[in-house]
Amino acid sequence: MGPGKAELLEKIEQSGSISAAARDMGMSYRRAWQLVEAINKSFSQQVVVTAVGGHSGGGTRITAFGQDVLARFLDMEAKASASIAADLRSYSEYLKAPKAQTRKR
Amino acid sequence: MGPGKAELLEKIEQSGSISAAARDMGMSYRRAWQLVEAINKSFSQQVVVTAVGGHSGGGTRITAFGQDVLARFLDMEAKASASIAADLRSYSEYLKAPKAQTRKR
Repeated sequence: MGPGKAELLEKIEQSGSISAAARDMGMSYRRAWQLVEAINKSFSQQVVVTAVGGHSGGGTRITAFGQDVLARFLDMEAKASASIAADLRSYSEYLKAPKAQTRKR
Repeated sequence: MGPGKAELLEKIEQSGSISAAARDMGMSYRRAWQLVEAINKSFSQQVVVTAVGGHSGGGTRITAFGQDVLARFLDMEAKASASIAADLRSYSEYLKAPKAQTRKR
Protein backbone atom coordinates (compact mmCIF):
# COMPACT_ATOMS: atom_id res chain seq x y z
CA MET A 1 0.00 0.00 0.00
CA GLY A 2 1.07 3.56 -0.60
CA PRO A 3 -0.60 6.96 -0.95
CA GLY A 4 -1.60 6.37 -4.60
CA LYS A 5 -3.18 2.99 -3.98
CA ALA A 6 -4.95 4.31 -0.88
CA GLU A 7 -6.41 7.18 -2.91
CA LEU A 8 -7.55 4.73 -5.57
CA LEU A 9 -9.31 2.60 -2.95
CA GLU A 10 -11.01 5.65 -1.50
CA LYS A 11 -12.27 6.68 -4.91
CA ILE A 12 -13.48 3.18 -5.72
CA GLU A 13 -15.29 3.17 -2.37
CA GLN A 14 -16.95 6.50 -3.17
CA SER A 15 -17.92 5.75 -6.76
CA GLY A 16 -18.41 1.98 -6.71
CA SER A 17 -16.51 1.90 -9.99
CA ILE A 18 -12.91 1.29 -11.00
CA SER A 19 -13.31 3.23 -14.23
CA ALA A 20 -14.79 6.28 -12.44
CA ALA A 21 -11.98 6.14 -9.87
CA ALA A 22 -9.36 5.85 -12.63
CA ARG A 23 -10.85 8.78 -14.54
CA ASP A 24 -10.94 10.87 -11.38
CA MET A 25 -7.23 10.24 -10.84
CA GLY A 26 -6.25 10.81 -14.46
CA MET A 27 -5.16 7.17 -14.69
CA SER A 28 -5.93 4.62 -17.39
CA TYR A 29 -8.49 1.94 -16.61
CA ARG A 30 -5.81 -0.67 -17.33
CA ARG A 31 -3.44 0.89 -14.80
CA ALA A 32 -6.16 1.07 -12.16
CA TRP A 33 -6.98 -2.60 -12.71
CA GLN A 34 -3.33 -3.53 -12.36
CA LEU A 35 -3.12 -1.65 -9.07
CA VAL A 36 -6.30 -3.29 -7.77
CA GLU A 37 -4.95 -6.71 -8.70
CA ALA A 38 -1.64 -5.94 -7.01
CA ILE A 39 -3.50 -4.85 -3.85
CA ASN A 40 -5.67 -7.96 -3.80
CA LYS A 41 -2.63 -10.17 -4.31
CA SER A 42 -0.63 -8.61 -1.52
CA PHE A 43 -3.20 -9.04 1.26
CA SER A 44 -4.39 -12.23 2.93
CA GLN A 45 -8.03 -11.51 1.95
CA GLN A 46 -9.79 -9.71 -0.89
CA VAL A 47 -9.72 -5.92 -0.60
CA VAL A 48 -11.69 -5.06 -3.74
CA VAL A 49 -14.48 -7.22 -5.14
CA THR A 50 -16.23 -6.83 -8.44
CA ALA A 51 -19.70 -8.15 -9.12
CA VAL A 52 -20.09 -8.91 -12.79
CA GLY A 53 -23.61 -8.31 -14.06
CA GLY A 54 -26.42 -9.40 -11.77
CA HIS A 55 -29.43 -7.44 -10.67
CA SER A 56 -27.52 -4.23 -9.99
CA GLY A 57 -25.51 -4.51 -13.19
CA GLY A 58 -22.14 -5.13 -11.59
CA GLY A 59 -20.24 -2.64 -9.55
CA THR A 60 -17.12 -2.73 -7.47
CA ARG A 61 -16.76 -2.37 -3.75
CA ILE A 62 -14.23 -2.43 -0.99
CA THR A 63 -14.74 -5.33 1.41
CA ALA A 64 -14.99 -4.85 5.19
CA PHE A 65 -11.47 -6.25 5.38
CA GLY A 66 -10.35 -3.72 2.75
CA GLN A 67 -11.96 -0.87 4.66
CA ASP A 68 -10.03 -1.91 7.74
CA VAL A 69 -6.78 -2.09 5.74
CA LEU A 70 -7.45 1.34 4.26
CA ALA A 71 -8.39 2.93 7.59
CA ARG A 72 -5.25 1.57 9.23
CA PHE A 73 -3.09 2.82 6.38
CA LEU A 74 -4.61 6.32 6.53
CA ASP A 75 -4.22 6.34 10.30
CA MET A 76 -0.52 5.43 10.04
CA GLU A 77 -0.02 8.05 7.34
CA ALA A 78 -1.59 10.73 9.55
CA LYS A 79 0.38 9.63 12.59
CA ALA A 80 3.69 9.59 10.69
CA SER A 81 2.97 13.05 9.24
CA ALA A 82 2.07 14.46 12.63
CA SER A 83 5.27 13.09 14.15
CA ILE A 84 7.41 15.17 11.78
CA ALA A 85 5.18 18.20 11.24
CA ALA A 86 7.48 20.60 13.09
CA ASP A 87 10.64 19.26 11.38
CA LEU A 88 8.93 19.51 8.02
CA ARG A 89 8.13 23.17 8.55
CA SER A 90 11.78 24.01 9.19
CA TYR A 91 12.94 21.69 6.38
CA SER A 92 10.65 23.39 3.91
CA GLU A 93 12.59 26.61 4.41
CA TYR A 94 15.43 24.92 2.53
CA LEU A 95 13.23 24.58 -0.53
CA LYS A 96 13.27 27.14 -3.26
CA ALA A 97 10.34 29.52 -2.87
CA PRO A 98 7.71 28.55 -5.43
CA LYS A 99 7.04 31.09 -8.14
CA ALA A 100 3.84 33.06 -7.72
CA GLN A 101 1.09 31.22 -9.56
CA THR A 102 -0.87 33.10 -12.13
CA ARG A 103 -4.51 32.31 -11.66
CA LYS A 104 -6.85 31.53 -14.44
CA ARG A 105 -9.68 34.00 -14.60
CA MET B 1 13.11 14.61 -1.70
CA GLY B 2 12.04 11.05 -1.23
CA PRO B 3 13.65 7.74 -0.29
CA GLY B 4 15.04 7.13 -3.80
CA LYS B 5 16.64 10.56 -4.13
CA ALA B 6 18.02 10.33 -0.60
CA GLU B 7 19.64 6.99 -1.41
CA LEU B 8 21.11 8.44 -4.59
CA LEU B 9 22.63 11.34 -2.63
CA GLU B 10 24.09 8.94 -0.08
CA LYS B 11 25.68 6.87 -2.82
CA ILE B 12 27.06 9.94 -4.59
CA GLU B 13 28.50 11.07 -1.25
CA GLN B 14 30.15 7.68 -0.74
CA SER B 15 31.51 7.23 -4.26
CA GLY B 16 32.10 10.82 -5.37
CA SER B 17 30.55 9.81 -8.69
CA ILE B 18 27.09 10.02 -10.22
CA SER B 19 27.80 7.13 -12.59
CA ALA B 20 29.01 4.85 -9.77
CA ALA B 21 25.95 5.78 -7.70
CA ALA B 22 23.64 5.12 -10.67
CA ARG B 23 25.27 1.74 -11.35
CA ASP B 24 24.98 0.81 -7.71
CA MET B 25 21.24 1.53 -7.81
CA GLY B 26 20.62 -0.20 -11.15
CA MET B 27 19.63 3.14 -12.65
CA SER B 28 20.75 4.70 -15.93
CA TYR B 29 23.29 7.53 -15.77
CA ARG B 30 20.77 9.73 -17.57
CA ARG B 31 18.11 9.04 -14.96
CA ALA B 32 20.52 9.75 -12.11
CA TRP B 33 21.48 13.06 -13.74
CA GLN B 34 17.82 14.01 -14.10
CA LEU B 35 17.21 13.30 -10.42
CA VAL B 36 20.27 15.30 -9.39
CA GLU B 37 19.10 18.23 -11.52
CA ALA B 38 15.62 18.01 -10.03
CA ILE B 39 17.10 18.01 -6.51
CA ASN B 40 19.33 21.00 -7.22
CA LYS B 41 16.42 22.89 -8.75
CA SER B 42 14.09 22.29 -5.85
CA PHE B 43 16.35 23.62 -3.09
CA SER B 44 17.42 27.19 -2.43
CA GLN B 45 21.12 26.25 -2.68
CA GLN B 46 23.15 23.66 -4.60
CA VAL B 47 22.96 20.17 -3.11
CA VAL B 48 25.24 18.36 -5.57
CA VAL B 49 28.22 19.99 -7.27
CA THR B 50 30.33 18.56 -10.05
CA ALA B 51 33.88 19.65 -10.71
CA VAL B 52 34.71 19.14 -14.36
CA GLY B 53 38.32 18.21 -14.96
CA GLY B 54 40.89 19.98 -12.81
CA HIS B 55 43.72 18.49 -10.78
CA SER B 56 41.66 15.65 -9.35
CA GLY B 57 40.00 14.87 -12.68
CA GLY B 58 36.53 16.02 -11.77
CA GLY B 59 34.31 14.29 -9.29
CA THR B 60 30.99 15.02 -7.74
CA ARG B 61 30.23 15.87 -4.16
CA ILE B 62 27.41 16.80 -1.86
CA THR B 63 27.72 20.34 -0.48
CA ALA B 64 27.55 21.10 3.25
CA PHE B 65 24.05 22.43 2.60
CA GLY B 66 23.18 19.17 0.81
CA GLN B 67 24.51 17.12 3.71
CA ASP B 68 22.28 19.08 6.05
CA VAL B 69 19.28 18.55 3.77
CA LEU B 70 20.03 14.82 3.56
CA ALA B 71 20.58 14.43 7.30
CA ARG B 72 17.31 16.19 8.08
CA PHE B 73 15.43 14.05 5.57
CA LEU B 74 16.87 10.81 6.98
CA ASP B 75 16.07 12.01 10.49
CA MET B 76 12.44 12.72 9.55
CA GLU B 77 12.17 9.37 7.81
CA ALA B 78 13.46 7.58 10.92
CA LYS B 79 11.18 9.57 13.21
CA ALA B 80 8.11 8.92 11.07
CA SER B 81 8.93 5.19 10.90
CA ALA B 82 9.43 4.97 14.63
CA SER B 83 6.09 6.70 15.27
CA ILE B 84 4.20 3.93 13.47
CA ALA B 85 6.43 0.94 14.18
CA ALA B 86 3.89 -0.78 16.43
CA ASP B 87 0.96 -0.14 14.07
CA LEU B 88 3.02 -1.41 11.17
CA ARG B 89 3.71 -4.69 12.93
CA SER B 90 0.01 -5.34 13.42
CA TYR B 91 -0.82 -4.07 9.90
CA SER B 92 1.71 -6.44 8.37
CA GLU B 93 -0.31 -9.38 9.69
CA TYR B 94 -2.90 -8.45 7.05
CA LEU B 95 -0.39 -9.06 4.31
CA LYS B 96 -0.18 -12.37 2.56
CA ALA B 97 2.65 -14.43 3.99
CA PRO B 98 5.53 -14.33 1.53
CA LYS B 99 6.36 -17.61 -0.16
CA ALA B 100 9.47 -19.31 1.12
CA GLN B 101 12.39 -18.19 -0.99
CA THR B 102 14.45 -20.83 -2.70
CA ARG B 103 18.05 -19.92 -2.24
CA LYS B 104 20.62 -20.08 -4.98
CA ARG B 105 23.37 -22.48 -4.10
